[in-house]
Amino acid sequence: MKWSESYIPTLRDDPAEAEIVSHKLLVRAGYIRKLAAGVYNYLPLMQRVLTKISNIVREEMNAAGAQEILMPVLIPAELWQQSGRWETFGKELMRAKDRHDRNLVLGGTHEEVVTNLIKGEVRSYRQLPLNLYQIQNKFRDEIRPRFGLMRGREFIMKDAYTFDRNEETFKESYQKMVDAYSKAFTRCGLETRIVESDTGAMGGKAAHEFMVMVETEGGENVIFNCDKCDYAANMDKAISKELEPDIKEDSQKPLEKVATPGARTVEEVTAFLNVPAKKLVKTLLYKADGEVVAAMIRGDRQINEIKLKNFLGCIDLEMADAAAVEKVTRATVGFAGPVGLENVQMVADEEVPRMNNFVTGANQDDYHFVNVNIGRDLSIDQVVDIRNAQPGERCPRCREGVLHTAKGIEVGNTFMLGTKYSQSLGATFIDEDGKEKPFIMGSYGIGITRTAQAAVEKFHDEGGIIWPASIAPLAVEILPVNVNDEKQREVALQIYRRMEEKNVEALIDDRDERAGVKFNDADLIGFPLRINVGGRTLKEGKIEIAIRRTKEVILVEPEQATGKCTELLANL
Amino acid sequence: MKWSESYIPTLRDDPAEAEIVSHKLLVRAGYIRKLAAGVYNYLPLMQRVLTKISNIVREEMNAAGAQEILMPVLIPAELWQQSGRWETFGKELMRAKDRHDRNLVLGGTHEEVVTNLIKGEVRSYRQLPLNLYQIQNKFRDEIRPRFGLMRGREFIMKDAYTFDRNEETFKESYQKMVDAYSKAFTRCGLETRIVESDTGAMGGKAAHEFMVMVETEGGENVIFNCDKCDYAANMDKAISKELEPDIKEDSQKPLEKVATPGARTVEEVTAFLNVPAKKLVKTLLYKADGEVVAAMIRGDRQINEIKLKNFLGCIDLEMADAAAVEKVTRATVGFAGPVGLENVQMVADEEVPRMNNFVTGANQDDYHFVNVNIGRDLSIDQVVDIRNAQPGERCPRCREGVLHTAKGIEVGNTFMLGTKYSQSLGATFIDEDGKEKPFIMGSYGIGITRTAQAAVEKFHDEGGIIWPASIAPLAVEILPVNVNDEKQREVALQIYRRMEEKNVEALIDDRDERAGVKFNDADLIGFPLRINVGGRTLKEGKIEIAIRRTKEVILVEPEQATGKCTELLANL
Repeated sequence: MKWSESYIPTLRDDPAEAEIVSHKLLVRAGYIRKLAAGVYNYLPLMQRVLTKISNIVREEMNAAGAQEILMPVLIPAELWQQSGRWETFGKELMRAKDRHDRNLVLGGTHEEVVTNLIKGEVRSYRQLPLNLYQIQNKFRDEIRPRFGLMRGREFIMKDAYTFDRNEETFKESYQKMVDAYSKAFTRCGLETRIVESDTGAMGGKAAHEFMVMVETEGGENVIFNCDKCDYAANMDKAISKELEPDIKEDSQKPLEKVATPGARTVEEVTAFLNVPAKKLVKTLLYKADGEVVAAMIRGDRQINEIKLKNFLGCIDLEMADAAAVEKVTRATVGFAGPVGLENVQMVADEEVPRMNNFVTGANQDDYHFVNVNIGRDLSIDQVVDIRNAQPGERCPRCREGVLHTAKGIEVGNTFMLGTKYSQSLGATFIDEDGKEKPFIMGSYGIGITRTAQAAVEKFHDEGGIIWPASIAPLAVEILPVNVNDEKQREVALQIYRRMEEKNVEALIDDRDERAGVKFNDADLIGFPLRINVGGRTLKEGKIEIAIRRTKEVILVEPEQATGKCTELLANL
Repeated sequence: MKWSESYIPTLRDDPAEAEIVSHKLLVRAGYIRKLAAGVYNYLPLMQRVLTKISNIVREEMNAAGAQEILMPVLIPAELWQQSGRWETFGKELMRAKDRHDRNLVLGGTHEEVVTNLIKGEVRSYRQLPLNLYQIQNKFRDEIRPRFGLMRGREFIMKDAYTFDRNEETFKESYQKMVDAYSKAFTRCGLETRIVESDTGAMGGKAAHEFMVMVETEGGENVIFNCDKCDYAANMDKAISKELEPDIKEDSQKPLEKVATPGARTVEEVTAFLNVPAKKLVKTLLYKADGEVVAAMIRGDRQINEIKLKNFLGCIDLEMADAAAVEKVTRATVGFAGPVGLENVQMVADEEVPRMNNFVTGANQDDYHFVNVNIGRDLSIDQVVDIRNAQPGERCPRCREGVLHTAKGIEVGNTFMLGTKYSQSLGATFIDEDGKEKPFIMGSYGIGITRTAQAAVEKFHDEGGIIWPASIAPLAVEILPVNVNDEKQREVALQIYRRMEEKNVEALIDDRDERAGVKFNDADLIGFPLRINVGGRTLKEGKIEIAIRRTKEVILVEPEQATGKCTELLANL
């Protein structure tokens, strides 16, 4: 590839739209361009990365006995109505209507379609297990698309679906996929950690996520790991075991309403009353499928909305708006409290009943209650774990270790679906015993576009991207320092041609640009190796091979360049 | 690949939904399954065919200097509003709305997106020419999806877009694509004919189509070829030059209204009045963007709605419904005529003014006029070619040859867009003379899924599909006649393993099925070669290689199978 004939629009400055480093670099280095919120164009270099990741995933899927198919993007709404997800998927489901006003789903996941596909055609246990997968553009109407390809509305996924006779064979099928995933990510240069996760909109019995651990802001997911056992879970799934004993005082003090003018937040109220945050109970009002719900949690804790949503079993959960808050509490936002709150479902985090003499809002502007006590001042029906776990808590599995947190990017997930889809869509087979049974299913996703960006979030430096060799758009950049120097141009082209002959993917930067611009661009786009052709080195009959990751520079004769590069690439 | 571990659901009977042979075969042989009208699942064998076609196209595009990218499916409506196509594309445009009620287009073609992509980034003539392409699922809300993958609502396209400085370099870019297309189709085993075509919803200056000529019903397109020169055009574009001289009688006869009880169609009226169809003028009522238009054409001619639509410059053209006809003519459908028709735009085909004393409807139930004459009984403002050309007409180019027709399947098209999109979207560059100019653009499509089906429509026999070797899902099927015979199983597996070693793609039919079922399935799925292992032949130490296309059978020793197959495949 010649740079002069390629479309690689590098930019000097970080794009305003980007928050995290991988997003900035992919835009600056000419890999992606935004079309709309969460919707991106993939430029030539990106297309090469995506093809490489797809091919690695494809090879590992095929090796595990999965068969590639391609299902449609357009899905009749009826199928999703049958499975119930037309409702439960909520607003994240991207919908369309055709010219006859029929509802369509733009596929974000294909459990219904694949189940419908084999229904009536796979009839015998002899045809099982079956594993079908596809690599395809997927759609999800994210409420907050962000971080470039990390949380897009359109993205490329590999999704696989397994069909099994029984739980034993299903376990084998599931394990095969888990192993194939680990292998595929490793081949992409990414070590992954497998964590327990919420089943979310997919439903089913259990789920796992494959996480690339990073130190940067792009690590959206907080992972809890036990330091003694192999427990690992994401924040939505991590079970919180209380860190401290009860924080009850010996006796109940009389309830008191105190003026707290203008103090709404936990910080403001605790500062005003001079009490620690753990002596306060926050009352958060939500709308769960339209109904107002009050959630109570200790003042120093964070509520986990997925845990709350799962407990409530609702489809849409959102913070109540100011009007709803005022209607229920008869006060403006910031003064809600459980005492005297009527006609509202009240859910308390597990820690709340272990407190007494606490502070709450008084459902009156500029007032709070102090010395609130359960039983005497309010009653709680529903007590549940709705708080985020905290680093330092006890491990919920071994009950000995302590939980530590780390940041991760989810690049894959696996779901044990059980018979949720086969039953709702009536997909059955005849087992060896002659009985008709629903398939035991699993579904498995790898975010192809997200994996690409995760690699950038993980591997970069101040100069730009450092691609793992296996997924780099090209392996080598050949950089004649001055293309107007005939000798340099000639040597560079010779090396380039030899690379082509030996099938080493190379880009030659044949632009008539300043050396500084070309070196900066080379670091920015981040191929594993760069060959500098020029200057004193060339006069001495040598060229430089620079290793992007280590910044090491090796001097060789031009004739040795291809061989040396091949050797180096095997270890990058 | 082992059949027992593959998903190849062959069917015994033709699917009720299919009209044409290629559609029937693709369903029966387990290549595709319908999800909704015009929306199909591609099963494992189909996925392999599509991958092969895509790779051939990709190689030829890359060789021609095009660069692969991937643009989004979801396109903000604003871009299409800027180009004007939000309106002009009509109901074929597949639309969606996101959670914020913003209008989105599901891309059926990407002129707007690609122009917007490079706008402001490609600024210098030095960066031109530029050719960007993608292979992607496309969407088109067809009013009558049919013929399987031929006319679908979701389909796979390769679409390319060129950007040029001026008309000269554009011609080179265009020719490069035309050459690449011919090569790609030839490599897929398909010879194509290039014909002039209507520019349709794409707009621009001129367009060509690549046609695979077939004898079967699947050849939707009628192609007109001159027998003297190289003129070739599809029916929507073929200029009709009158075959016969004027058919005027010497003098005008008096207008007469005659009772024609129940006679509505040309056949009924001409039979009743005992006149030839060419003495009748049909008056067809259309709604053009809601306005009623009357189109007049000789009774024995077919109207071409694309020609009419292009002349009217409207977006939606459809036959007027019964209510509209009655409102305009004050008669039921079948009795419309030009005499006394008011407040309606009247368009006459070129042949109409060359007639006199003709028959028309009388705008009164059960009556027709005879001896109608232009000038005396009605006036015509607009005369235009709106009829289908007929085989036997004079060639409109050389004016010597005669037009003949043939049936074709459109597998590719190329459009000279001029500056339609660069101007409407404001995409310009600075030319060598320092002036700001809009890009000269071209767009180029290949229907990947349609090419696959065209190959089946072209190459099949009574037994099933006959794939060209280059796009066959696999090259060889190994068929042990009886898998319970240890010797047969062993020899078949040996051949299978050797094929794998030598990278010859083979499927072994290891099913415990009757020989007849397996032979029928082998013919049906249509790999180029089949190796029969069994019976007397094997006792004599030989196996049979059957060539699917010629039905030739070659006897070789099992050890020679791979070598012989490789040799044969080079010529299939």
